[in-house]
Amino acid sequence: MKALYFDGQSLQLKELPVPTPGEHEALVRVQLAGICNTDLEIMRGYMGFTGVLGHEFVGIVEKAPYRSLVGKIVVGEINLACGECLFCREGMKTHCSERTVLGILNKDGAMAEYVTLPVQNLHVVPPALQPEEAVFTEPLAAACEILEQIRVLPEYRVLVLGDGKLGQLIAQVLWLENHKVLVAGKHPEKLALLKKLGISTTRVEDLAEVRQFFHVVVEATGKWEGWQAAMRLVRPRGFLILKSTHAGQHPYNMAEVVINEVAVVGSRCGPFTRAISLLEHRRVQVEPLITAVYPIEDYQQAFEHARQPESLKILFQFFES
Amino acid sequence: MKALYFDGQSLQLKELPVPTPGEHEALVRVQLAGICNTDLEIMRGYMGFTGVLGHEFVGIVEKAPYRSLVGKIVVGEINLACGECLFCREGMKTHCSERTVLGILNKDGAMAEYVTLPVQNLHVVPPALQPEEAVFTEPLAAACEILEQIRVLPEYRVLVLGDGKLGQLIAQVLWLENHKVLVAGKHPEKLALLKKLGISTTRVEDLAEVRQFFHVVVEATGKWEGWQAAMRLVRPRGFLILKSTHAGQHPYNMAEVVINEVAVVGSRCGPFTRAISLLEHRRVQVEPLITAVYPIEDYQQAFEHARQPESLKILFQFFES
Repeated sequence: MKALYFDGQSLQLKELPVPTPGEHEALVRVQLAGICNTDLEIMRGYMGFTGVLGHEFVGIVEKAPYRSLVGKIVVGEINLACGECLFCREGMKTHCSERTVLGILNKDGAMAEYVTLPVQNLHVVPPALQPEEAVFTEPLAAACEILEQIRVLPEYRVLVLGDGKLGQLIAQVLWLENHKVLVAGKHPEKLALLKKLGISTTRVEDLAEVRQFFHVVVEATGKWEGWQAAMRLVRPRGFLILKSTHAGQHPYNMAEVVINEVAVVGSRCGPFTRAISLLEHRRVQVEPLITAVYPIEDYQQAFEHARQPESLKILFQFFES
Repeated sequence: MKALYFDGQSLQLKELPVPTPGEHEALVRVQLAGICNTDLEIMRGYMGFTGVLGHEFVGIVEKAPYRSLVGKIVVGEINLACGECLFCREGMKTHCSERTVLGILNKDGAMAEYVTLPVQNLHVVPPALQPEEAVFTEPLAAACEILEQIRVLPEYRVLVLGDGKLGQLIAQVLWLENHKVLVAGKHPEKLALLKKLGISTTRVEDLAEVRQFFHVVVEATGKWEGWQAAMRLVRPRGFLILKSTHAGQHPYNMAEVVINEVAVVGSRCGPFTRAISLLEHRRVQVEPLITAVYPIEDYQQAFEHARQPESLKILFQFFES
């Protein structure tokens, strides 16, 4: 099969054997796979990953331990849990201490014609959903995770820093809870997508004089400058949600966090069932976030496109519906 | 009056005029004042403060707008709030955006024969309390603040990193909620004080192999190594409470916070009424934490003593009861 392999230095399109599913696993033929900023960070050294990239996908089950699953269109949770460690036993499978993570940690990912995953990781896509919508399940679930961690009360002032693909999903999810959500970004055409949905937006530079104003600030720029802006903008006793990871260290003094009693909350993978439900009932709009769709052969062009500041989601398509 | 003045470079015992209380302020004759690690950090440049040091005290009211207050033994909250800003109006006076802070920010402190404070900052000390107990109200309130911020559930594993004066108070306060509190320190004689109270202790080095074990880790060492250890020891979705401030920057990679979905919660000043109640009903033991009492004239020796690793609380006594 064709697969996009990262060897620690560069990305290559390789011809690899179709993977063999384990006892409780399914073999999925990938239809669409998305490029996430995490993929770009991995290519800068984040996680030290080598292998097939990709953790956002939708596909069709070709082999499974249960016949009923074969032929189903599925999306998949990316953390492969042992089921036995302390965290698994307490229901925190995304934090399994023995986990591998699809396309991120010791597990070949979904930018390939085929991928394997444990059956328990798979979610059947409702018939109402197009593959181009379903492929957003993973990042949308990550956006939903914030609401698993904090309550976004109606009286809160809420700021999403970053108008990128994750920021867009987060803004839409938080807006369902609180219509005072404001998104600060740098790209007029991306902010325009949010405005169309009735979500308030601003240019980042227009917040330059604002200090300690927002009860909740979600850092979704993935940049150190985003952290600095977030710390300035969050009010005392507010929540600073860290939603994006990136490689590299930065000098900082945590005294600011102490003095202002800020709660800095890291936020990663989230509930697939909720994300699927939001997609199915059209509570969020994802298709406008698709910038381009490429065949896997054009991976270099696709990644180049994904790195452009004006890009949102770039997808690989392996076959048509 | 005699006052310990920090000019940005060094500490001097000065003869200053007795301060004049403002309209809603009282003049307090200081009996005891404590040295806090924040004072030591200020002398390393933290907060850029110059003025009379000291924010932990007990004293007698000499002048006040209300006659009934004169002659009363009092302790005082250290944040002087404007009463009008957004945060004051929402009841977050310790986060007043216009605040000054006793001995820390634009307000002369309590290492002096006299100090002024707004009447609303003062709390009358119950007759059952000795001045040597009451002088711990401010740091004990800071310890209590943690319980205003998170719930410490009975099933949680709780670790206090640091066996210093603040760590000791935090451990005692958290132990009232959860008897599984463990304190990790470096000083056998300090850990012995906790053991006497029935609190479990360990040497920091004995945790070297432990990872992601505690639901709550309180960082009370005030050292960069403390942060690193805390991040290693807190479990996914756990709370890392930052309780101490220090000067200087260190390299942080926030990806750890995101991946493990840790909530890093800064924690500063706390509820005086609760601290006084705990002291009054002997729910915490503070007198064993007094290492030495000095006259203000011996300030150099006192600060030297406070910097010794084996020291706990050093007090200045201005007059005897």
